[in-house]
Parts: sequence; structure tokens; C-alpha cells
Amino acid sequence: MKVTLLHASPLWLAAHACRMSHDNHNKSDSKFGVTGTKDMELIERVGNKLKHKSILEQLVYHFDIDDISRACLQELSRHRTARLTVKSTRYTLNKMKPEDNFMDYLVSVSPEIDDMNVIQLKAIAYSNKSNDIKKYMLPEAFTTSLIWQIDGRNLQNFLTLRCSNEALWEIRDLSKEIFDNLPDHHKYLYKGCVDEIYW
Amino acid sequence: MKVTLLHASPLWLAAHACRMSHDNHNKSDSKFGVTGTKDMELIERVGNKLKHKSILEQLVYHFDIDDISRACLQELSRHRTARLTVKSTRYTLNKMKPEDNFMDYLVSVSPEIDDMNVIQLKAIAYSNKSNDIKKYMLPEAFTTSLIWQIDGRNLQNFLTLRCSNEALWEIRDLSKEIFDNLPDHHKYLYKGCVDEIYW
Amino acid sequence: MKVTLLHASPLWLAAHACRMSHDNHNKSDSKFGVTGTKDMELIERVGNKLKHKSILEQLVYHFDIDDISRACLQELSRHRTARLTVKSTRYTLNKMKPEDNFMDYLVSVSPEIDDMNVIQLKAIAYSNKSNDIKKYMLPEAFTTSLIWQIDGRNLQNFLTLRCSNEALWEIRDLSKEIFDNLPDHHKYLYKGCVDEIYW
Amino acid sequence: MKVTLLHASPLWLAAHACRMSHDNHNKSDSKFGVTGTKDMELIERVGNKLKHKSILEQLVYHFDIDDISRACLQELSRHRTARLTVKSTRYTLNKMKPEDNFMDYLVSVSPEIDDMNVIQLKAIAYSNKSNDIKKYMLPEAFTTSLIWQIDGRNLQNFLTLRCSNEALWEIRDLSKEIFDNLPDHHKYLYKGCVDEIYW
Repeated sequence: MKVTLLHASPLWLAAHACRMSHDNHNKSDSKFGVTGTKDMELIERVGNKLKHKSILEQLVYHFDIDDISRACLQELSRHRTARLTVKSTRYTLNKMKPEDNFMDYLVSVSPEIDDMNVIQLKAIAYSNKSNDIKKYMLPEAFTTSLIWQIDGRNLQNFLTLRCSNEALWEIRDLSKEIFDNLPDHHKYLYKGCVDEIYW
Repeated sequence: MKVTLLHASPLWLAAHACRMSHDNHNKSDSKFGVTGTKDMELIERVGNKLKHKSILEQLVYHFDIDDISRACLQELSRHRTARLTVKSTRYTLNKMKPEDNFMDYLVSVSPEIDDMNVIQLKAIAYSNKSNDIKKYMLPEAFTTSLIWQIDGRNLQNFLTLRCSNEALWEIRDLSKEIFDNLPDHHKYLYKGCVDEIYW
Repeated sequence: MKVTLLHASPLWLAAHACRMSHDNHNKSDSKFGVTGTKDMELIERVGNKLKHKSILEQLVYHFDIDDISRACLQELSRHRTARLTVKSTRYTLNKMKPEDNFMDYLVSVSPEIDDMNVIQLKAIAYSNKSNDIKKYMLPEAFTTSLIWQIDGRNLQNFLTLRCSNEALWEIRDLSKEIFDNLPDHHKYLYKGCVDEIYW
Repeated sequence: MKVTLLHASPLWLAAHACRMSHDNHNKSDSKFGVTGTKDMELIERVGNKLKHKSILEQLVYHFDIDDISRACLQELSRHRTARLTVKSTRYTLNKMKPEDNFMDYLVSVSPEIDDMNVIQLKAIAYSNKSNDIKKYMLPEAFTTSLIWQIDGRNLQNFLTLRCSNEALWEIRDLSKEIFDNLPDHHKYLYKGCVDEIYW
């Protein structure tokens, strides 16, 4: 599993939204694209304490998520406000190498299952069926990649649900990676959502 | 694959929306819950010809979709405005019977692939791993069920894209089933979207 | 202000969604379209206690909302998941009668403001400008009507925010009307959201 | 009316999404944050010609929109996928100066209407009612400001509908301003939507 932050909205956008509502842009201490301390406290107070969550929707994050299983993708898809572009089986299955397409995670957890999946994948790789048929044989451990775009409000919801001890182990690991890859000065807004992982 | 319409908004709701916009409810010829001819023509003209698509959002359909593959579910999930509740692998995998969990479709198309998937499923069924691990071995041909809710505007988009000859065969079949299961007097609104299948 | 429930999804749809997830439809005690006691408790437990809020998205409500001000419509529009069709000023302004287009509410609260608005409205009514110009003179107290469609999950969010003592008085009254017009056997799912109004 | 682009996603994100789908990132000619010619053509082909519109959802734009009327805000709110934060009447009405709060546009189009609105606004300014009451007297010509966030796919829909000759004059002007304020190298993706204004 590999998570890379591709792009993040500048943090001052959320402060700008708070100040828009009250028409007090003149009190902002952000400048030259750097979000000031007062503005950071304002976002925390309005978005988190007063729960005007729409402020946090102005923050948008784009992640590159590589090497998660298609089982995990199924769960990720349930977060329907996030926008995603996924590696297409139709166009890419021909390139697959069975030995590359498994998660190190899964192997370490459960090696015998991995063996069985590799047998399945080899059978697919050597089959002369079309990709639209072969995809039906893929074990859900088969890995995929995607671009994932989410806003701050829905990211809080995602982290809260998926960092929980109740969540599937893989999406829990993914949530941790996503939090870790946020810009450092954005993290304070999401700390309350990842408690079960870090503390 | 089995599709059942669980519930549909009454058609006159869309006519009511058209007449709300122009404040001419007095011209409606719907009564006792039956949508009149004039009202039906009005929905077609405003929603389809004049393309005020928001009118069609007032129509909401709930379907029960049984026995589609999890490969097809992956594609269905891309339609992010539809709301779905899916059979959970975590809570239901223990009950699975390998011989029941395959699509007749797939077997008829490609019997040798089916054989291989059945071997894989038997291995899962007899494994003593937890469901959260076993799910990673499921071939994507494994079947699932869900409730699927979609509004009329997004249903038009879905049918147009997924009835196309370019679509994956299974979701194409699913689209046809969904259209066939619409209430008969609603179908005229969606006919333009299923041309590639019927004509 | 007048609120009418036009249509509601049957309650058993939410129970059906809960049971879909666990594949235990056989335990349902709903029949002939009547939602059983066990099924009602299930929705409360899964949707409210366990917070699997997506279950509640399967419930959809259509309301007719008449005689709210366009000031209130501005606030209603902020709930962007609700789908609405509004009386068009472009097509209906010619029909307006100034004396009909004010809220009794507002008059009772603040009669002198009402006088002023009536003067403004009379000026509009007798102006020979096009509706697209006259609309700019409408005071926000001017009343409008709409169809408003919302699902159960977002209705909980709406009621929680708008029944609060902090909310604008008119949208607070509207929230109460909306709750009161829900089908009686659905109300138990939303009671926790209207505490500030009723208790 | 004043429109300022606050932030735009880098264009290469859309190309990255196209290449994710086909797993051919190695063919990209974007580097150091500059989107290459081949990548620009790819976005146009996949997003516009082949109509894989989800690619365009990866592009997100934040605009500052100042001095539009609340009549125009009503129409803007109908585009429910856009995320907005609006100047609050509750918190800002005390600061208003009647003579500042009108659109030059409207005055030039229809001076007599402006006179009447100014009388109305002066009455509000000198009233000792609370902001929550005074807002009901505001004529819809009263100006407001907001942050408006929209993605590329929905921006195409917005521009197509609102640049039309059928649209309200003010939102038509606003659409033109929004198009003009896009980053120059993004404009080629939206040209087809603004034909009625420019040609």
C-alpha cells in the first residue's frame, strides 16, 4: 500500500470562508499564501467546535492510492461523496504479472491464502479469454490503484468510521496512511478523528 | 440475476413539480393518484425536450438486485448519486454455499473459468480463517445482493451509459432488467436511453 | 406557512436494507406493506444507536411547502442534498396580488415592516417592467412555494440544526411543521432531533 | 460584480486521472507541475470527446464572487453540487450602507427601480429591529458575496445552462466572468459551453 498526496487546497481557503460569513476579512493574519495562527484557530473554532462543517468542505485533497486490494476498493466506494478514478481492469489486465499483484500485507497475515490466490492469478494470466471475462476470476486480494479526491468535512467522517477498531484491517491501515500524508499544518483539524489509531 | 422493483415514486410527483414552477396546478388532470395524459405529456416536454432535468429528480426508484457478481458491483458503485445497501461479506460469508454462489450467466459463457472459481470457493468455505480474511480470496464472480435507490435524472444517465454496446456484458444485462422492471407507465421517460438494447 | 407530506417511502424499506446487510430477511415481521415491531426496533438500533446512517437514506420524503418567505428559501437551499423545485418568479410574478403574498407570521411579529413591504410590492405590481427586472425589487418577505425531497439521514441533520434555538425563527417553525407532517409511525426515528422544540 | 479565482487544481491532475485508468503514466509529458501538450490533448479527448466526464471532476475551482444580488444567489443555489459559503445577513446587516449595496448593473438598466430599493434599504438601515427581522425587508437586488467551489464537470453544466440566451441577465454576466477568470490554459476544456456568449 502506498499513499501520496497529489494536491491540497491551501488552508487559508477555509479561513477565508469563515471570514466571508462574518465579513471580517480585514482581521485575517494569513499572507503570501501562509495561513496565520489566528486564522488557524478560527477554522478549528468554527468548523470543529461550533460544527459549521460546511467551512471544511472548502478544503479538497487529492491522493494517489496504490496497491490496495479490490476488496478494500469495495469499501472505499461506499464513501460516495469522494470522487475517484480507478485503474481499469478492461484496459490493464493484460499487463498484470501475478507475482506483482499481491499485497505484502496479506501474505504476511495469511500465507496459505496467498498461495491459493497466486494459483488463481496464474490461471488468469495464461488464459486466452478477454479481459471482460478474466476479471471474474480475480480474487479480491488483487491490487488496484486510484486517484481519490475528498473534502475536509467528508474526510473527517471517513477517518472517524475507518480508523475505528471495528473497521476492516486494510481500510484502517489506509486511513492511517491518508492521515499521515496530509500536509502537517492541516493535521490539527483531523486529530480528533484518528484517536483509536494513535492513542 | 434477479431485479425486483421495491417502490417507485408516483409519477404525478414529477408533474406536480412542473406545475409548481409555473404555478398552474389547476391545469393538472391527475386525480386519485392516477397521472393524467396531459400531465404525462408535460413531464416528457419539460424533463426531456426542454431538458429541465431537475424535474425528473423528484422520481425515486428502489430496486432489489440479487445475484450480480461483485465485479458488477464495482461498476455499479461508480454511479455515486445512487444510494445502495449491500450484503456484507463480514456478516454473511459463513453462510455461503459454493455451488449457489455463481452466476448461471458466467457458467454458460465460460465453463472452464467457472470450474476454477468453484475450486477457489470450496477452499474458502472449508478454511477456518475469519470472514475478514476469507473475503480476500473471493473471485469477483462471487455473487452479491443489494438495495439500489436512484432518481429519474441519474437513471437516465445510468441507462444511457450502461445499455451501450461498449458496456460490460453483465451491467448491460442489468440495465435491461432495471428498465424492464420500471412501472409500465414510467417507461416512456426512459425509452430514449435504451435504444442500443432494444432497437 | 403550510406543509403537506406528498409521499413517503414505506418504512419497511429501511428494515429491508438492515436485513440485506446481514442476509436475514427471513426474520422480518413486516408483511402486506405494514412494518412490524421487530423491524421498527431494528431500524432504530442500526440507524440511530449503531449509527449506520446509510440505512436511513433509503427513506425518502416529498413535501409540499407553501407560503414561506424567499428569505427562508435562501436558508433551505443551503441543505444541498435535498432536491427542490421552486415556484419560478419569471413565470409567476405577473399573477401576484400584493395583499396575498405576505406571511401572517411576519405581520404579527412586526406590522410596520409589513406596511413597508406592501408599498414595495404594490409598486412592483403596477410597474410595466419585465418579471426578470421586477424580481429585483421583491422584499425577501415575499412568499414562495416548493416541492422539497429529502432522505431520512439528511432530514435528521436538517432537524437537528434547524430546530435549534439558534436557528432563524421561520425555518425553526418550518422544521416543526415538517416533523409534525411526517407519517406518525416514522416519527420515532427523528424524535432525538427535535428536542429543543418540544421539550 | 467582481469575480476572483482563488485557487484551481493543477491541470495535470485530470491527465493523471486519464492515465490512471489505462495505467500509462509513463507516457505523460507533464513535468515540474507544467501540463504537457500530449496530456492536454488527452484530457480533451477523454473528458470531452469520449465523454468520460468523471475525469473532469478531478479539477476543482474556488472563486470569490462579490457584489451579486441575492436574486442571483437564489439561482446560483440551484446548482447543488457546487459548495458555497455566503456572507451572513444575521452577522453583517448592521454594517450595511444603503448606497453601497446596489449593483451598478441594475441602476444602469432600470434607475427608477433602484430609487425605490434605496428607499427600502434606508428604512431598514434606520430601523431598530434585529437583523433576523430586518432581512425580510431586503429587496432581492441587495448585494451579497460568497466563496463558490465547483468541479470541472459541473462547471461545464453550469456554463452551458447559464451562458444561454434564455438565462437571467445577471447570472449570464456572472457565467462570463467565471469563464474569463479561469486559468488561461484550462479554458480550452470549457469553450464549447460558452458559445452563445462569445460567438
